Amino acid sequence: IEAGDVEQLQRTVENLHESELGDLIEALEPNERQEFVALLGDQFDFSSLTEVDEAIRMDIVTVLPNEQIALAVREMDTDDAVYILEDMEEEDQADILAKIPFTERIRLRRSLDYPEESAGRRMQSEFVAVPPYWTVGQTIDYLRDTEDLPDSFSQLYVIDPTFRLVGAVDLDSVLRAGRDVRVEDIQRETRHAIPAEMDQEEAAQIFEQYDLLSAAVVDENDRLVGVLTIDDVVDVIQQEAEEDFKRLAGVGDEELSDNVISTTRSRFVWLLVNLATAIIASYIIGMFDATIEQMVALAVLMPIVASMGGNAGTQTMTVAVRALATKDIDIYNSGRIIRRELTVGLINGMLFAILIGLMAAAWFGNVPLGLVIAAAMIINMICAALAGILIPLMLAKLDIDPASASSVFVTTVTDVIGFFAFLGLAALFLV
Amino acid sequence: IEAGDVEQLQRTVENLHESELGDLIEALEPNERQEFVALLGDQFDFSSLTEVDEAIRMDIVTVLPNEQIALAVREMDTDDAVYILEDMEEEDQADILAKIPFTERIRLRRSLDYPEESAGRRMQSEFVAVPPYWTVGQTIDYLRDTEDLPDSFSQLYVIDPTFRLVGAVDLDSVLRAGRDVRVEDIQRETRHAIPAEMDQEEAAQIFEQYDLLSAAVVDENDRLVGVLTIDDVVDVIQQEAEEDFKRLAGVGDEELSDNVISTTRSRFVWLLVNLATAIIASYIIGMFDATIEQMVALAVLMPIVASMGGNAGTQTMTVAVRALATKDIDIYNSGRIIRRELTVGLINGMLFAILIGLMAAAWFGNVPLGLVIAAAMIINMICAALAGILIPLMLAKLDIDPASASSVFVTTVTDVIGFFAFLGLAALFLV
Repeated sequence: IEAGDVEQLQRTVENLHESELGDLIEALEPNERQEFVALLGDQFDFSSLTEVDEAIRMDIVTVLPNEQIALAVREMDTDDAVYILEDMEEEDQADILAKIPFTERIRLRRSLDYPEESAGRRMQSEFVAVPPYWTVGQTIDYLRDTEDLPDSFSQLYVIDPTFRLVGAVDLDSVLRAGRDVRVEDIQRETRHAIPAEMDQEEAAQIFEQYDLLSAAVVDENDRLVGVLTIDDVVDVIQQEAEEDFKRLAGVGDEELSDNVISTTRSRFVWLLVNLATAIIASYIIGMFDATIEQMVALAVLMPIVASMGGNAGTQTMTVAVRALATKDIDIYNSGRIIRRELTVGLINGMLFAILIGLMAAAWFGNVPLGLVIAAAMIINMICAALAGILIPLMLAKLDIDPASASSVFVTTVTDVIGFFAFLGLAALFLV
Repeated sequence: IEAGDVEQLQRTVENLHESELGDLIEALEPNERQEFVALLGDQFDFSSLTEVDEAIRMDIVTVLPNEQIALAVREMDTDDAVYILEDMEEEDQADILAKIPFTERIRLRRSLDYPEESAGRRMQSEFVAVPPYWTVGQTIDYLRDTEDLPDSFSQLYVIDPTFRLVGAVDLDSVLRAGRDVRVEDIQRETRHAIPAEMDQEEAAQIFEQYDLLSAAVVDENDRLVGVLTIDDVVDVIQQEAEEDFKRLAGVGDEELSDNVISTTRSRFVWLLVNLATAIIASYIIGMFDATIEQMVALAVLMPIVASMGGNAGTQTMTVAVRALATKDIDIYNSGRIIRRELTVGLINGMLFAILIGLMAAAWFGNVPLGLVIAAAMIINMICAALAGILIPLMLAKLDIDPASASSVFVTTVTDVIGFFAFLGLAALFLV
């Protein structure tokens, strides 16, 4: 298809949903993507660009003429338009904005003026607002007669003459009420209006907590400036969960479409930090080289203690990081959770101490060696549990992202304690 | 407050949103929870139970009299009621259902008959359906006059006389259209009707892909049986992302409120599997005990090679597992992604080989030792990249959950290859 049959291509693409088109673009080889979009020309549905990774979006947008982008942006809802505009060079952005009619330009610029990843960036500036003294009949007539309504909406917002938010009305209440009922009598209080400056993650948590489908976005003077809808929020939730997930392994901001160089670079940093951890562990082992020389079994067994501690610590840490992200852990229950983790660590430590102690004693025919590794296992499992819960809690308190930083510290603790406890006890009691 | 001041307690709780009440219940000590609900009596808002962890919900539900639960369940939407009923003992479930009026009982039983975690379990059986030949005016009058409508709805469904789904109408289209317009003229095709048997995760992916706010749920004969709304789907998305996140660390089904015994047990299994991995690694080291005896520096350095491989493998694996979960990786691009991972592994392997080679040579004043560790590092980083991408892909192909099983296999590979390559090369070239 890539061979140039434009017509066939356009026909194939025509029936695709914007997200399917986005998937198609992602599936193409990088060098085919720009050509593909160029071939489609005016037929290209720009909303598909909101469905692809940032790197791919930028690749495509930079080669398209600003005129074409401006035309497309005019047709889009502001939230989608902002998506495309926000990552562009300032120069191109200004150029495109200049080509857009006044009202829309004002709206877009206002959205773009809010900080990155704020509710103001994600909101849709198109909404339907009515005064409280209107009746349901007036409202329905207004909706029937007005041409310039948003593409779709599920709530009406009630505002006073200064555009300040008074309440919201769900469309089903409008349909249920008689024509004479006043809007103010069926409106709901909007308890969860979202300040435009609020971080999108915080806004998403409000949506989740109160099961909202949409929420009014207000400026610092409580004036209605836009609407945040659940479909934008779902993307945010998805994105944030994914970020935490990836950060734990040190691949936080990576996207599947990133190229080799940026992937290598971002992973290199993480591995470098881990190299430092590994060298610290080696240094601990080096302190006991004379002991190991006398008893090579120690070298054979020592990774077991360290790795079990590492795994147990990671388990606790994963639960803690996730609970911190979802705000399920706070000062009220952190004491209880620390106690629980400690108990779990102690019990599993003892169980595995017995297992590994018996195994080591049998393998090397050396009962004291079994006792030493058992003791080291208990010590390391308890430290792992403590590190796994306390490190994320402390990082969160210091306003450092626990997902990004916890695992380095936790594995450092479990490696250092694992090797030190095992080799130290061995040096004291075995040789 | 727990000391028995019922009135004060009821007043405090009255103004809370169901999710805030749920949070409050979770924050209480386990032994206080049942007492708290008992004190509230009839004032207790059962929907808060849909907001707490499963273990807590069961704790509370088992002590409440079935009469009270039946009364509460009657008042709830079916999706919330199913949430509470689905985990109960069969006997209690039947008893409660027997206490509920006929129509509602039929609906609940139908939902409960669908498999666990299916769309049928999550759907709401209350919806508004109209025939296609009605006009907008008739529809609005019907909505105004009918008492027994769902609490809230954002779409009308269009059905034929046999209840088969014909289309859907968004409420905003109803409000925009004149009274004489027929429903069939403003309906949308419902391209994304969801079979009730479909797994909730799959349903959630359809919602995400097509940015749906709600979708019709149909039975095997295409008859409309319920509605799935985005707020239920958000919970599913959240839950599935969290499960994957936790499964990678072996704490998959754990909830923050689980007690010590179930937590210890579930983590024990994972640690046991990892113990097996660690023992395999030890066995490899044991093969080279004579070599280590001659050169203790090998014991000091060997964890570095294994741990760097483990970290690099985990990075690749995390990206792969996530991409598999979001279906961002498939047969079209897996070749490209494997090539990319291999290249990244090779480049980072060479960089770290140089770093660690120089460091080891300097530390022990031994250039051949530096060359050996450098070579082992490159080998292990390449194997780590391959294992990190190929193992999740293979597991997915075998229909085994990559999130649960990948990390054991990946660390086994990186440990075994790390120790074997380093100690093996050392045995060949150094002693």
